[in-house]
Amino acid sequence: MSIPTSILWEKNKLIILDQRKLPIEIEYLTLETIEDVYDAIVKLKVRGAPAISIAGAYGLANAAQKYNANTINDFLQELQKDYVYLIGSRPTAVNLKWALNRLMSSVQNIESVTKAKSVLIQEAINIHEEDEEFCKSIGEYALTLLNDKTKVMTICNAGSIATAKYGTALALFHLGSERGKHFEVYACETRPVFQGARLTVWELQQSGVDVTLITDSMAAHTIHSKGIEAIIVGADRIAANGDTANKIGTMNLAILAKAFDIPFYVAAPSSTFDLTINSGEEIIIEERNADEITIIGEQRITPPNTKVFNPAFDVTPAKYITAIITEKGIIDQNYVDTIQRLFGN
Amino acid sequence: MSIPTSILWEKNKLIILDQRKLPIEIEYLTLETIEDVYDAIVKLKVRGAPAISIAGAYGLANAAQKYNANTINDFLQELQKDYVYLIGSRPTAVNLKWALNRLMSSVQNIESVTKAKSVLIQEAINIHEEDEEFCKSIGEYALTLLNDKTKVMTICNAGSIATAKYGTALALFHLGSERGKHFEVYACETRPVFQGARLTVWELQQSGVDVTLITDSMAAHTIHSKGIEAIIVGADRIAANGDTANKIGTMNLAILAKAFDIPFYVAAPSSTFDLTINSGEEIIIEERNADEITIIGEQRITPPNTKVFNPAFDVTPAKYITAIITEKGIIDQNYVDTIQRLFGN
Repeated sequence: MSIPTSILWEKNKLIILDQRKLPIEIEYLTLETIEDVYDAIVKLKVRGAPAISIAGAYGLANAAQKYNANTINDFLQELQKDYVYLIGSRPTAVNLKWALNRLMSSVQNIESVTKAKSVLIQEAINIHEEDEEFCKSIGEYALTLLNDKTKVMTICNAGSIATAKYGTALALFHLGSERGKHFEVYACETRPVFQGARLTVWELQQSGVDVTLITDSMAAHTIHSKGIEAIIVGADRIAANGDTANKIGTMNLAILAKAFDIPFYVAAPSSTFDLTINSGEEIIIEERNADEITIIGEQRITPPNTKVFNPAFDVTPAKYITAIITEKGIIDQNYVDTIQRLFGN
Repeated sequence: MSIPTSILWEKNKLIILDQRKLPIEIEYLTLETIEDVYDAIVKLKVRGAPAISIAGAYGLANAAQKYNANTINDFLQELQKDYVYLIGSRPTAVNLKWALNRLMSSVQNIESVTKAKSVLIQEAINIHEEDEEFCKSIGEYALTLLNDKTKVMTICNAGSIATAKYGTALALFHLGSERGKHFEVYACETRPVFQGARLTVWELQQSGVDVTLITDSMAAHTIHSKGIEAIIVGADRIAANGDTANKIGTMNLAILAKAFDIPFYVAAPSSTFDLTINSGEEIIIEERNADEITIIGEQRITPPNTKVFNPAFDVTPAKYITAIITEKGIIDQNYVDTIQRLFGN
């Protein structure tokens, strides 16, 4: 039993777990070139915003080791080219850009090419280690908050394989498992893409956590009949007032939690907060391809011209969120003021 | 455009729509023998409690036409044998037994074999016609109740093809369509068996109703962002206090309706009420096979030993139900007293 991770840095090589094949095949890929990294991001071999940013950082640092530049200026020019190329793999991914910007800044005042090469590797390692540390911290806070509650529901995969290690919403289960604490986790399958069924079930099984799969439609009955004591989810983006965008289906669970009078927790690192957005109403919801819903396995199950509404996420109003758990601590009241104080400029 | 039906009685032949193949293939089957009817029920070629009871009634009446008995006693003996055989196709189906009992009662005091044969056919036709009439009545009451509301959500298939015609929860949409009233229906796909995606979408398209498919997880976001004005569902069983057992996922929707302050309606004929049950807590929830959740199309998506919880239905507490719509009228207050008055002995 061990906590699965999706990104390894071994003997100066970047190795990733191919998440497209999970859980049917457990296959690790060595990404030798920057083109390999670009391809892995585009094809979703690596997924989860923190995991993508870590893979991108190693990809850029690694590419720089092979530059033949003799002067630091030539070196930085080559680096700039690869930086632009790699951002193109996910133009809208805030975390990826944030990580690559950190690498660029780290060599801004370096004068030798040899030194710059080692600084880039070190900065990528820093980003990797820092993410693991943040996730662990979120897990520790979550354990405190859950206290003696053990029956917990979650949705999607805010897990170890989406981050450096531990995950956000799933961190407490991995830490609990290491310490002999028995959680009973109910994982919603997470239609349409089944991240709960495919990834969360596998990930928790790997670290010895007792996990049961349900469909999203079974949430209310499961809370009632199994005595669920809390719900914990991750986040894609949190507005200045605490409204939280996350995988579609999250708002359903938040409303059920309130109806059954159990706490609803959001777990996310500080990089998830977007203080340029005052409330969730300003967040534009991406709609995805109808085929995700109408084709099951390889087979179409609806008539060909079926109208489909396929929003990728929803926005849970802060009033349904009992607390937001970050690496800097737990926010459980006065969302606007506390978020501004912790994450504002 | 026309309302699809799943059971036809034409030139003394029972013809059913094969619901296993919907909506990919539209195939009608003539059921010649009582063994054909037994097989169709067991293999779910015919589904929906009212539709099963109608098919069963025709099956038994039809079989009796071929008996060689010369005396009424011999005839009744043969009939009794086929009655027992047919009930065995769905031992727990209350409606099927109720319909076959009606056929048995109809010939209790008949003295000639020829007369008995024609009485049985007539009683099967009565059951068929009565169900259509009840569904239409439910649809008319629902139209009154919805008034000028047009954006409506539903789950599963409480539809025309599950009854003689019109359906229960879907009756108002078919009637509305006939009268040029434009409804915008949002159909939840209904995991794990996809009755919403496979059957409701097809059925409503057939009668020209504007229907959009969503996953069950999208309900809260859809209610909020599309301005859903009401939710209407069918029922498997209604207790004396109004608590309603229906397809898993129904309770989620009822709780969401309350949170968004929109009405939540249950539509069901009087045969759905079970006054031997005081409250929903007494209803035992059937659990089904894990494969329904873990295998998608032909492919397993979870590790082989995945723990699964797969309840087939849930029980919505009466406090979440704005009104129950029956063929005898609308029940919207004092559930215990009104249900007793309308359906008690």
